[in-house]
Amino acid sequence: MQMLKDRIVKDGQVIGTEIVKVDCFLNHQIDVDLVSEIGKEFAARFADLPINKILTIESSGIALACATAMHMGNLPVVFAKKAAPNTMTDGYYYTEVTSFTKKAVYTVIVSKKYLSEQDNILIIDDFLAYGEAAFGLIDLTKQAGAAVCGFGAAVEKAFQGGGDKLRKEGYRVESLSVIASIEDDHITFRE
Amino acid sequence: MQMLKDRIVKDGQVIGTEIVKVDCFLNHQIDVDLVSEIGKEFAARFADLPINKILTIESSGIALACATAMHMGNLPVVFAKKAAPNTMTDGYYYTEVTSFTKKAVYTVIVSKKYLSEQDNILIIDDFLAYGEAAFGLIDLTKQAGAAVCGFGAAVEKAFQGGGDKLRKEGYRVESLSVIASIEDDHITFRE
Repeated sequence: MQMLKDRIVKDGQVIGTEIVKVDCFLNHQIDVDLVSEIGKEFAARFADLPINKILTIESSGIALACATAMHMGNLPVVFAKKAAPNTMTDGYYYTEVTSFTKKAVYTVIVSKKYLSEQDNILIIDDFLAYGEAAFGLIDLTKQAGAAVCGFGAAVEKAFQGGGDKLRKEGYRVESLSVIASIEDDHITFRE
Repeated sequence: MQMLKDRIVKDGQVIGTEIVKVDCFLNHQIDVDLVSEIGKEFAARFADLPINKILTIESSGIALACATAMHMGNLPVVFAKKAAPNTMTDGYYYTEVTSFTKKAVYTVIVSKKYLSEQDNILIIDDFLAYGEAAFGLIDLTKQAGAAVCGFGAAVEKAFQGGGDKLRKEGYRVESLSVIASIEDDHITFRE
């Protein structure tokens, strides 16, 4: 998605060789016009699938998931919540996710009321890096007996391998920008 | 806003005399059609003010803030982030917020890059109860030298006093549903 790649180049803040911060338009300050365009793009890319619900994880995924849901005929959105490890989880599906960025393990929960075996889930998130959050959300979906139709990320950091790991396991992954490498403050996208 | 009040009566889950959970359509599962209507209503109610930015707090405020921003000509949204108390806050405005529901104190931060003295801020949140989060967001706004134009809440629990405290201090408050009391599983709205 050229509009997003241009914006990352223009306003993304590169830190070292592994991090690009997009918090001026995606995950602290939000450009709702861009977010709506991203939602439209996800909706188009997944239009062939019988998706009935969007799953994401708080907080940065929420705006993108809602925009996608709006462009897919107002589907319901469910956002998984982060909780401290070993939180009481009665009535919830839960899983553990390791955050490499924050060097922490947290528990992610979804109420059993909002995922069921009738659901065909599209998972949406802002970043796809090592894939830890993605596999956590897939785990929650599987616990509910729901089907994972696909995974959509605004920014995939290909060099961290999560996207290709998902593809290798047979998941449909659509990333709107795929960063191959970050070197000397320069971002190279994979075509 | 009748549509919201009807939905609270239909799908809200009353717990005791102080809590109504709306997590099946607002803050865990999200009905994006309702959220868009809420955004439209906030936009109409605050249309007379020179608002240039929407401020909210993660996670439940994000969808509402984005919907409002879209209906106000794609204004930027900034969401304050919750952090552990005494988090390193270099480059951030920060304040302490007490959560009565969770019986915890947390630090709330906003990057100094995204609030400035040029800003006329509309604060949006899902709930207005004791007003702790609202006053925390006002504090962040004041630290930046920005103006608070108003405060919009989807659900105000009038019996917890936060809304009237804000009004008494001269803030413009627009709540789309105002709960006067919860008794015997029955919600009474203030007209």
